[in-house]
Amino acid sequence: MESSLTDAAMAPKQGDEGAPDAWLVFAPEVARALGDLAVGTDVLVLTWLDRASRDVLAVHPRGDTKRPETGVFSTRSPARPNPIGLHRVTIVGIDGLRVRVRNLEALDGTPIVDVKPVLGGVAER
Amino acid sequence: MESSLTDAAMAPKQGDEGAPDAWLVFAPEVARALGDLAVGTDVLVLTWLDRASRDVLAVHPRGDTKRPETGVFSTRSPARPNPIGLHRVTIVGIDGLRVRVRNLEALDGTPIVDVKPVLGGVAER
Repeated sequence: MESSLTDAAMAPKQGDEGAPDAWLVFAPEVARALGDLAVGTDVLVLTWLDRASRDVLAVHPRGDTKRPETGVFSTRSPARPNPIGLHRVTIVGIDGLRVRVRNLEALDGTPIVDVKPVLGGVAER
Repeated sequence: MESSLTDAAMAPKQGDEGAPDAWLVFAPEVARALGDLAVGTDVLVLTWLDRASRDVLAVHPRGDTKRPETGVFSTRSPARPNPIGLHRVTIVGIDGLRVRVRNLEALDGTPIVDVKPVLGGVAER
């Protein structure tokens, strides 16, 4: 992905806390996989948080040292054994293999692992 | 993970469509990461769907041939370039490194990639 966020210290904790728009950029080999994405819909983007620590197993949530250290499986910290990021974003534009999304807090150059629709109730599937 | 589901043909499409309870089984090395999981809470479990096809880019949603072929990034099909499964489950028991969860549709032996809390609104973070 391409983003103006280049420094973890600048990044908001979650996309809905002031993250910028970003481009998801796909390889030509997967063009058919993204062919039914639509502007105006929300999707889940899964990323590989390649600058995260993988050997940190407990953190103070949101970096707040007044909160007790908590096992990372109970937090959204990027530090975790397998640093997969999970981001709910709104698609605001599509240009071929490039998909513009609103409010993505991952850093510039973060690899995209997967894109999934948000699931509605059982009747809508 | 350990499950009574051993055959993809038996597995429901989503956990809330009749999937059995299952055990998440963790390595001792990550014990601290799961130390704050709590019975009665919902978590997101990310899995590696190791029996999925990675070269299928479009499918009939839910296997229904009356529905048009759709790019996999717009479906929850396990077939996708990077077959990460995303499952919302309720924790119903914890026994050391083993966590019992309700309604997980992944097959027995599917590797667990990550566990994350469900995010509430901004005020609850």
